[in-house]
Amino acid sequence: MLTRPDVAIVGAGPVGLAIAWRCARRGLRVVVHDPAPGSGAAHVAAGMLAPVAEAYFGEHELTALLVESAARWPAFAAELAGAAGTDIGYRTDGTLVVGLTADDLAEARRLWAYQQGLGLPITPLRPSELRDREPALTPRVRGGALAPGDHQVDPRRLLPALRAAAERAGAALRPAPVARLSDVFARVTVVAAGCGAAALTGLPVRPVKGQVLRLRAPGRGAPGFRHVIRGYADGESVYLVPRDGGEVVVGATVEERGDTEVTAGAVLRLLRAAVELVPELAEYDLVEASAGLRPGTPDNAPIIGPLPGRPGVLAATGHHRHGIVLTPVTADLVTELIVTGEPDPLLAPFGPDRFVPEKERGWN
Amino acid sequence: MLTRPDVAIVGAGPVGLAIAWRCARRGLRVVVHDPAPGSGAAHVAAGMLAPVAEAYFGEHELTALLVESAARWPAFAAELAGAAGTDIGYRTDGTLVVGLTADDLAEARRLWAYQQGLGLPITPLRPSELRDREPALTPRVRGGALAPGDHQVDPRRLLPALRAAAERAGAALRPAPVARLSDVFARVTVVAAGCGAAALTGLPVRPVKGQVLRLRAPGRGAPGFRHVIRGYADGESVYLVPRDGGEVVVGATVEERGDTEVTAGAVLRLLRAAVELVPELAEYDLVEASAGLRPGTPDNAPIIGPLPGRPGVLAATGHHRHGIVLTPVTADLVTELIVTGEPDPLLAPFGPDRFVPEKERGWN
Repeated sequence: MLTRPDVAIVGAGPVGLAIAWRCARRGLRVVVHDPAPGSGAAHVAAGMLAPVAEAYFGEHELTALLVESAARWPAFAAELAGAAGTDIGYRTDGTLVVGLTADDLAEARRLWAYQQGLGLPITPLRPSELRDREPALTPRVRGGALAPGDHQVDPRRLLPALRAAAERAGAALRPAPVARLSDVFARVTVVAAGCGAAALTGLPVRPVKGQVLRLRAPGRGAPGFRHVIRGYADGESVYLVPRDGGEVVVGATVEERGDTEVTAGAVLRLLRAAVELVPELAEYDLVEASAGLRPGTPDNAPIIGPLPGRPGVLAATGHHRHGIVLTPVTADLVTELIVTGEPDPLLAPFGPDRFVPEKERGWN
Repeated sequence: MLTRPDVAIVGAGPVGLAIAWRCARRGLRVVVHDPAPGSGAAHVAAGMLAPVAEAYFGEHELTALLVESAARWPAFAAELAGAAGTDIGYRTDGTLVVGLTADDLAEARRLWAYQQGLGLPITPLRPSELRDREPALTPRVRGGALAPGDHQVDPRRLLPALRAAAERAGAALRPAPVARLSDVFARVTVVAAGCGAAALTGLPVRPVKGQVLRLRAPGRGAPGFRHVIRGYADGESVYLVPRDGGEVVVGATVEERGDTEVTAGAVLRLLRAAVELVPELAEYDLVEASAGLRPGTPDNAPIIGPLPGRPGVLAATGHHRHGIVLTPVTADLVTELIVTGEPDPLLAPFGPDRFVPEKERGWN
């Protein structure tokens, strides 16, 4: 008979693999279950680490968690690159927020004024200052801002690095699906299954489709810009993430549906906005169009903590648009919870119990 | 030692395969050389059979050949479907030419007035008549015309059908490249190698890149329109070819270059024009973006006939935008030439000798 693992993790996305790595490094016996490791939402994701530009009205607690996790990213990236022995494409060039038309600029400004009000680092720039920083921007840009602390990582490097680090630390991968949690054999089970968490736990996690393009600079040179560019272009919102190898990720739609088809209309909207903001992108190769399903929640915040009525089961899902940036803090706090049994106060707003009717919570 | 074949054909595109089929049916021993049969320009082509809408100023002789070949298509399609035992997606719904803006309409009208002047069947329609025929057209369309005799076939059904028919008639495929014509062993060699003909023969055949999209109606239903639509939309020219299985081919760029990369700018232009003309296409899946290389010639006409100075070598290449529609007439006339030794008068304007300096022609 097999020894019971300390921790079983359902889902080998970045959150699940980072928890596996952290737990294994603490000496726990860890098993990760996933029929197709690394093939979920993160495979399609752009990898923006954007606590500031992603700070939206009415999401104070989420913003605080994004800021906390982003602050952990430099050390996390360095440690992971060392543990895995590979580069993960972590870049700190900062993010430019730009508005193409006066209306676009007004919308962008409304948001960055809010972000400034929270004390977050974002600095308005005139069109000439934007173009000094990125001459590839269209001269039509009406204005924008710099978020110097909004960085990026390459999810397609991050995922194999996390897997390698977890396995080197002793975690085992089981490439088979988990149909129900009672099939999992461990002291603690962590459900980090993205949208799949809904069927396993009953939590209100729903798929939010995102369509994303991958372009490549001609001749495989570096793209003609260094910053992440988040643009508003004729009412369309788009981001452009340049990578060292020549790739530019263009994303992303936000659609309340659960299929992963690529549609003509979405590709058209993304390309139109991208080329309006950075005209040279018209000459880039279009190498991939794909769609992923983000795990959305009713309040857009992740679900991290003990599952009411299910002793020994923790949730770490519902990261929606923020799975990559929230990976370090999620992994750290879940690992601490497993090792010490005590939840960090940072987790208080994100417990699964917020979605469970009060009368049912007593079961825990 | 092997028996020398009567005919060796270099290139297993539609022209090469149709010649192989026709020759084998006449009792000739036929070998077709191609390292990747059916993978050339025709694999990407939309398959429009459009002698009228493709009749351009100053190309009278080409137009006459297009009309002649289109007239052979119904019998050719029926015979081929019978010989291969498969459907080739031949459809006779006709083509609508439409102009989105007043400028677009003026450009389209200039061309169809020329086509009417040649006596070709094309009938102007009012916007209401266009929309009665195809309600999927945008209400913004300013006008257009119907070319009832411009039909379509599915090249991805045509190619395997031609291959099957040729093989059933006794032709043999050799899936290996031909580096030089002296390596080919046959009484008559036909160079039907598309752009590859330049290196083999020295003929002035150049690659003309075309980028093409394939969309699919949601739920795999039939597209919401039956006619081929050739549209002018804000200065962009685009065609939309609906297929029974739900596919809509959107094409095509015409670029003087020899790579087959798909570029962001081309996809943007094609999608923008397509969605402007038929708004429901925005909801269609984008299933493929690809590029092919048409064999272009200095006068846009094909090169069919004996190669000067190379006894026993015939060319059948340079079909540019017209390879599919010209397949029947090319196959018939080349086969007659091989069997009888006498060139049909129809071929007179298309001989390779028109590109050979007069003093060199004496070698023949």
